[in-house]
Amino acid sequence: MDRYRPVDPRESPRFSGVKSFMRLPHLKTTEGVDFAVVGVPFDTGASFRVGARFGPEAIRNVSALLRHHNEVLDVSIFDHLSGVDYGDLPVNPGYIEDSYRMIEEGLQPILEAEVTPIMLGGDHSVTLPILRALAKKHGPVALIHFDSHSDTGDKRFGRKYTHGTPFRRAVEEELVQVERSIQVGMRGSTYSRDSLDDARALGFDLVTSVEGQEMGIQKMIERIHDRVGDTETFVSFDVDFVDPAYAPGTGTPEVGGFTSSEALRLVRGLEGLNIVAFDLVEVLPQYDPSQITALLAANIAYEFISLIALRKSASKE
Amino acid sequence: MDRYRPVDPRESPRFSGVKSFMRLPHLKTTEGVDFAVVGVPFDTGASFRVGARFGPEAIRNVSALLRHHNEVLDVSIFDHLSGVDYGDLPVNPGYIEDSYRMIEEGLQPILEAEVTPIMLGGDHSVTLPILRALAKKHGPVALIHFDSHSDTGDKRFGRKYTHGTPFRRAVEEELVQVERSIQVGMRGSTYSRDSLDDARALGFDLVTSVEGQEMGIQKMIERIHDRVGDTETFVSFDVDFVDPAYAPGTGTPEVGGFTSSEALRLVRGLEGLNIVAFDLVEVLPQYDPSQITALLAANIAYEFISLIALRKSASKE
Amino acid sequence: MDRYRPVDPRESPRFSGVKSFMRLPHLKTTEGVDFAVVGVPFDTGASFRVGARFGPEAIRNVSALLRHHNEVLDVSIFDHLSGVDYGDLPVNPGYIEDSYRMIEEGLQPILEAEVTPIMLGGDHSVTLPILRALAKKHGPVALIHFDSHSDTGDKRFGRKYTHGTPFRRAVEEELVQVERSIQVGMRGSTYSRDSLDDARALGFDLVTSVEGQEMGIQKMIERIHDRVGDTETFVSFDVDFVDPAYAPGTGTPEVGGFTSSEALRLVRGLEGLNIVAFDLVEVLPQYDPSQITALLAANIAYEFISLIALRKSASKE
Amino acid sequence: MDRYRPVDPRESPRFSGVKSFMRLPHLKTTEGVDFAVVGVPFDTGASFRVGARFGPEAIRNVSALLRHHNEVLDVSIFDHLSGVDYGDLPVNPGYIEDSYRMIEEGLQPILEAEVTPIMLGGDHSVTLPILRALAKKHGPVALIHFDSHSDTGDKRFGRKYTHGTPFRRAVEEELVQVERSIQVGMRGSTYSRDSLDDARALGFDLVTSVEGQEMGIQKMIERIHDRVGDTETFVSFDVDFVDPAYAPGTGTPEVGGFTSSEALRLVRGLEGLNIVAFDLVEVLPQYDPSQITALLAANIAYEFISLIALRKSASKE
Amino acid sequence: MDRYRPVDPRESPRFSGVKSFMRLPHLKTTEGVDFAVVGVPFDTGASFRVGARFGPEAIRNVSALLRHHNEVLDVSIFDHLSGVDYGDLPVNPGYIEDSYRMIEEGLQPILEAEVTPIMLGGDHSVTLPILRALAKKHGPVALIHFDSHSDTGDKRFGRKYTHGTPFRRAVEEELVQVERSIQVGMRGSTYSRDSLDDARALGFDLVTSVEGQEMGIQKMIERIHDRVGDTETFVSFDVDFVDPAYAPGTGTPEVGGFTSSEALRLVRGLEGLNIVAFDLVEVLPQYDPSQITALLAANIAYEFISLIALRKSASKE
Amino acid sequence: MDRYRPVDPRESPRFSGVKSFMRLPHLKTTEGVDFAVVGVPFDTGASFRVGARFGPEAIRNVSALLRHHNEVLDVSIFDHLSGVDYGDLPVNPGYIEDSYRMIEEGLQPILEAEVTPIMLGGDHSVTLPILRALAKKHGPVALIHFDSHSDTGDKRFGRKYTHGTPFRRAVEEELVQVERSIQVGMRGSTYSRDSLDDARALGFDLVTSVEGQEMGIQKMIERIHDRVGDTETFVSFDVDFVDPAYAPGTGTPEVGGFTSSEALRLVRGLEGLNIVAFDLVEVLPQYDPSQITALLAANIAYEFISLIALRKSASKE
Repeated sequence: MDRYRPVDPRESPRFSGVKSFMRLPHLKTTEGVDFAVVGVPFDTGASFRVGARFGPEAIRNVSALLRHHNEVLDVSIFDHLSGVDYGDLPVNPGYIEDSYRMIEEGLQPILEAEVTPIMLGGDHSVTLPILRALAKKHGPVALIHFDSHSDTGDKRFGRKYTHGTPFRRAVEEELVQVERSIQVGMRGSTYSRDSLDDARALGFDLVTSVEGQEMGIQKMIERIHDRVGDTETFVSFDVDFVDPAYAPGTGTPEVGGFTSSEALRLVRGLEGLNIVAFDLVEVLPQYDPSQITALLAANIAYEFISLIALRKSASKE
Repeated sequence: MDRYRPVDPRESPRFSGVKSFMRLPHLKTTEGVDFAVVGVPFDTGASFRVGARFGPEAIRNVSALLRHHNEVLDVSIFDHLSGVDYGDLPVNPGYIEDSYRMIEEGLQPILEAEVTPIMLGGDHSVTLPILRALAKKHGPVALIHFDSHSDTGDKRFGRKYTHGTPFRRAVEEELVQVERSIQVGMRGSTYSRDSLDDARALGFDLVTSVEGQEMGIQKMIERIHDRVGDTETFVSFDVDFVDPAYAPGTGTPEVGGFTSSEALRLVRGLEGLNIVAFDLVEVLPQYDPSQITALLAANIAYEFISLIALRKSASKE
Repeated sequence: MDRYRPVDPRESPRFSGVKSFMRLPHLKTTEGVDFAVVGVPFDTGASFRVGARFGPEAIRNVSALLRHHNEVLDVSIFDHLSGVDYGDLPVNPGYIEDSYRMIEEGLQPILEAEVTPIMLGGDHSVTLPILRALAKKHGPVALIHFDSHSDTGDKRFGRKYTHGTPFRRAVEEELVQVERSIQVGMRGSTYSRDSLDDARALGFDLVTSVEGQEMGIQKMIERIHDRVGDTETFVSFDVDFVDPAYAPGTGTPEVGGFTSSEALRLVRGLEGLNIVAFDLVEVLPQYDPSQITALLAANIAYEFISLIALRKSASKE
Repeated sequence: MDRYRPVDPRESPRFSGVKSFMRLPHLKTTEGVDFAVVGVPFDTGASFRVGARFGPEAIRNVSALLRHHNEVLDVSIFDHLSGVDYGDLPVNPGYIEDSYRMIEEGLQPILEAEVTPIMLGGDHSVTLPILRALAKKHGPVALIHFDSHSDTGDKRFGRKYTHGTPFRRAVEEELVQVERSIQVGMRGSTYSRDSLDDARALGFDLVTSVEGQEMGIQKMIERIHDRVGDTETFVSFDVDFVDPAYAPGTGTPEVGGFTSSEALRLVRGLEGLNIVAFDLVEVLPQYDPSQITALLAANIAYEFISLIALRKSASKE
Repeated sequence: MDRYRPVDPRESPRFSGVKSFMRLPHLKTTEGVDFAVVGVPFDTGASFRVGARFGPEAIRNVSALLRHHNEVLDVSIFDHLSGVDYGDLPVNPGYIEDSYRMIEEGLQPILEAEVTPIMLGGDHSVTLPILRALAKKHGPVALIHFDSHSDTGDKRFGRKYTHGTPFRRAVEEELVQVERSIQVGMRGSTYSRDSLDDARALGFDLVTSVEGQEMGIQKMIERIHDRVGDTETFVSFDVDFVDPAYAPGTGTPEVGGFTSSEALRLVRGLEGLNIVAFDLVEVLPQYDPSQITALLAANIAYEFISLIALRKSASKE
Repeated sequence: MDRYRPVDPRESPRFSGVKSFMRLPHLKTTEGVDFAVVGVPFDTGASFRVGARFGPEAIRNVSALLRHHNEVLDVSIFDHLSGVDYGDLPVNPGYIEDSYRMIEEGLQPILEAEVTPIMLGGDHSVTLPILRALAKKHGPVALIHFDSHSDTGDKRFGRKYTHGTPFRRAVEEELVQVERSIQVGMRGSTYSRDSLDDARALGFDLVTSVEGQEMGIQKMIERIHDRVGDTETFVSFDVDFVDPAYAPGTGTPEVGGFTSSEALRLVRGLEGLNIVAFDLVEVLPQYDPSQITALLAANIAYEFISLIALRKSASKE
């Protein structure tokens, strides 16, 4: 069950070696693999700060700190799973549509092999080709979307593809089961009174940060479970969901957000759901001098992997 | 009603252009103007770290992220208001009394034109000449003062004017209605047992951070409303009111402070009060490598503007 | 009672002068001294990031911000205590066992003189020789240990002494009364399912971060008091106990931690206990561009000193 | 002759005010204007690091340090010239061909009004639409290109437009008089043995950094003058021409470069040439923590303006 | 002869201990002392960036790297000299004239005791009170002034005392023998054509950076020796004399400057002159993330001390 | 001939993928391999700043910028060589002698396979076990040592192994042919008058920075060639050989050093020598915010590889 597992931190110092995610084997293979960490170093869709192309590098570097056992979820990941760092998908910086095609195609062999991908962005524009690949494999999926922005804009400067529009496109292209989908954490000023209403009009359930802070983490978890049920689900986590104090290294930060504890509790609360893929986006290392954003991102990816391990473990019982 | 409004972020990328606050027109005018954002790049009053003279620049740069609609307060600012970036008031760095005179005189035409000023410091010493100008226009005003320090010291090294003394001076000069005034957020070690008692003895109501954290945000809002009533009010917000995790870029940080969510809730809770002017002080960009302090400051200024918009909107109904 | 006290910040600017802790007299003396701040600039025990050797320098630099009166505990430190900055204990960088001997020997004259030491690390490996010196003076002591890691590993790469093992060694060497000792704040992934169980098996009471966040600060304080009673006690505070948002400058940060307010409340909650020494470890200035970690560390040391002052004050009544 | 000139630094502190270039009037006008500083915040063409979209902001901020008189060239700029900060040209981030059209169109009114533009990038891909606009006005121009790369690649990942290809495109589109054009400063590893030969095969004279360092600054100046003669000339300066020690804040730095003194001497050495426009590209503030790259860029732009002033002055004699 | 010498770096690690300059004894004494390092943490005179008040702290921290023997000048400092870190002179931040009086008075006991002071600023405004104290002791002195600015402005915003005016004031107050004085390194844009001519008109010999780079280091040394002869001399070194690549951490950097090697050669070239005091100013740590500016400053101060040692050594032969 | 070569930067963006050196295959193999890049992330020997354990990671990250063809030496590396990133050798942080044994043993299989190693430190203490392994394979080798320190100290705090002593140990252990060995670049203050004389007394030829700057690069190259002749040679390059302006990210920087151009010329000047191994040490990323030190280090390693390629190429002619 542990064909591929990380270098053991008790045998080699964690700061040592070429930095793959969690120091997993860096192999572009799907054979004997349960999950694959996959970088998508693309940031041409960004509307303000850029640099998420170095997000996967930064997350990999600091992910060396992660250890094998998830204490809170009580699961030893590699008792149940075999995983690899698959490397990065090919992209063409500066060309969104080219890159969309390359990302979608690059992801397909992973999905076809029934390997669960943990995608590391890149800006949030990369989620659209991920959803396209998923829909090809699974049909429309439920979406759980943690973010301070709903990213359901229509066009920007006349163009349909940016990091502010993927979820409107996903609805239009019928990649998601919108009535099974939920967006959580929206906050900050908006372009107009309609901005969030538009997201709701598309069919999403939407919980703003202010609403979520009032209802509390447990209630949010319940609302997510109620919404997605046992549908095949995609989880998209924009690191700007948490407050800039906890995640300064991001492209369009919004103050007034969640803490790292709250984010971890929410992700752990997804236990039991039928999740087929994950992404974690918008880490910009040049705004993260102490690496705390990359560290939080690595930990959230780690919780994602733990959820896969728990599900695998439960399915065998 | 929208004679002057920002460059539309949907028409021009937010990172683009000469950076005025929110990319408002940079005009030294009061005609047809409801509010003016005004820099006061003065930091000669600082007792520890310096550099708040670059505060307005840093806040302007990152304020480009702000959009037109305040989702939580549900107000589209420029449906109700016309606003400009008035630039910076003249100051003489190194000379406090010169600068006090220049700031007071510089502010007068704005006040006389019934334009609501949003002042961006600078260190907290700039609040005294602001209060002098306000008192000339309005008589003594109520003061709502968010800060980790009461800034009611008497003299420092024999001198009356520093960033640790403005509110004592304001009481002595009868610029504030001290019985209508409240200071919130004081914490950190003090020079002596008397320090906060002295502030109270001057007549201020004072809520420390520890007290405020115990009573909760809603109670603090009520206490503020009870205190100031419908008096003409000045709001002074020192960014060190929030914890250094949320606002590292400041001159005399004190650990154990409020979060950005709490600060936003408090400011939004001022809705309905009769506020005639605002300041936001003590942003030091050289201690703010990820711009999160400047971003929080810009957002607080944005909430100030939203309060003006709400009041304008309400007055028309 | 105030033979040695800091330079008065009202008489000399706080940014001024050679930077001893709190600008106390820098004297290698114990005569007429109640407490001594002592640096231990040793980081050879670190398993991931290094640089804690510059921790004492960074803490001293920013400790200039501290003032004489603790407002929350209502104690004016130097009304009750005389204190010095004793400088740094000698260490031999690169050689753990040499340094252990030097630290233990360096600390002894302080303990023999009944001076309460506030030790500033350095990585957490320095706590073992501190405990050795304490046990020589006091016999085994109770331990209150705030940290995100239990530091009760056995060996790393075949060696017994690292910053991940001091508390197992302390139990083995009978330096602590383990049944009177408590570890608080553990979180993050672990090397195996047994990691925390091993700590508990050694005899420690252990409260994880998740448990602590659920039970609340007040309950944790009570649990600590119940555990240690009036035993002579050592307090060891690893700055990674707080969340990386509040303390980015540390060696093995773990997301999902406590806030600075919570940390301060916990430390203040130790009032009344019979504490004979303190340490504060794992501050790495090169990951702390805004000095907020060093500032928090300085404040925690300040609360330690305040506890000594309170106890001295109470004993006289 | 000085219709538009900067705020006088002797009358208002240089750190003060909304930051246009050199604190010139920020006006989108060409009337009564001799030169216009124009931002082109576009970085979608970048192949490695991104963030040049914030280059104009960073250069403007620190350009406040510049004063009116060029001591070395002995010219008081505003005795001869009227100038404005024209703001930024519109661009569509993420879309190169859209932006090329917008840049070309945006520049035309400036050229038509006989105003000399000083363009601030942005990455080097912006030079192609600048050359297109110039060619429309002037026909093919001579090119003086300072850079560590020749930027004469053909395609990258199948696409013709990136920051590595503008000068090949310019030759193909007959925008430059290649036999009158020169590239200076090439260094660093290349993709293949042919890389620089290809540039030479296109017709450019090319001086590598190693050759230039051997021949010396004066000889390089002579070679440039010999090459371009009195042809209408465009000067393109990539800040990576200088060594990363002097310009760390750039996208594809190459070690082994020129000093700031050498760069200034070279630019001053262009005196007397018939230059119709300038650009300065590839400043990335997020890699420039001390602002030295932006400061050097501002100074080079200042020398450009001084050259215009000298030519204007000479033409009147 | 070595009553006071640094902690021996072969006996205690250089990163260890409370950081006085070179880890010299921190003593406010002049008895048995040949030289005293004295901080002047005053930056109220600064016209652009501020923060030089933390200059002495930063220089002290990194000066721990300095060792006892000057290899190039071949002198073992403490074979000849006894020295102390005298701490900082009292200043009143925000009040220039107060501080001028405090600095002048603070320096007097050192001069009266025939101790050679090495003053660490602080901004360049501190040189005026230093010269006042020197003139009281020695009468007017020769001045050797390394700087990118001549600092001979008259008034700024109507005030006579800033960091841009000390040397005009010094001439007016007859503190320097201007016909024996020389300014070296001026460069950068100036406020007007007259700026440097004014300095020359005051009587100074003046060598610009461009002139100095042409004449070479050796010729500059000769010109300095010719100018000052054996007059009692004061050396003032503004760290912005070197290029920002070598000294990014300063207040008004000017590109196109000297290298660290050239600066060291120049200072060493002062051997044999009759120097009675030194200062080193304008180090701003917040713009110096890698501490290279502070390190260069510490080394220049070290060369100053070496010159004293050489002179003492020579006088005994 | 090119069994193993980097990912082609024309086929995949250079910022993409798991970061091995130059994006070479990360394989712990020697079969079909001409050179191997090998990390040695060990910094327990450091006497001042620490953090070189992250040097290999930082160099690998930015080495993605390197391309296949060395323009100056006119060699296309992978036309002649097959190379891999071998990963890091095992070390035991905190334990020098353990690590020495691990490094020596780890290197042996590479040497035995006649693969030329390019070792990336780590602090300079790692060179001793490298020399031990080399001597086992080749017998004593000639040493070319670029550094600002001679690293020929005897003991520090009673211990023989630190980063200040490897070359004395190497002579004592007869690992080098000292009469064929040369040290270049020494500068900075020394512990005593004897420091450099001691190095010379050991038998090294030694050229200080001041001497080298006077004799010029070409003369230094000749002196090196004369010294080592055709002996089997090891090249050790401490990045502090260059000035801190060019390499701020290092542990014990010394001002007054060489430029990056000069360093490159020197290394290229080693062409023709019989070099059997290289190391590049003392890169500390936490003092290198703009990555310029890591970039220079990567380029020097690249020149090393180019020298191997040239020699291979020549041997075939």
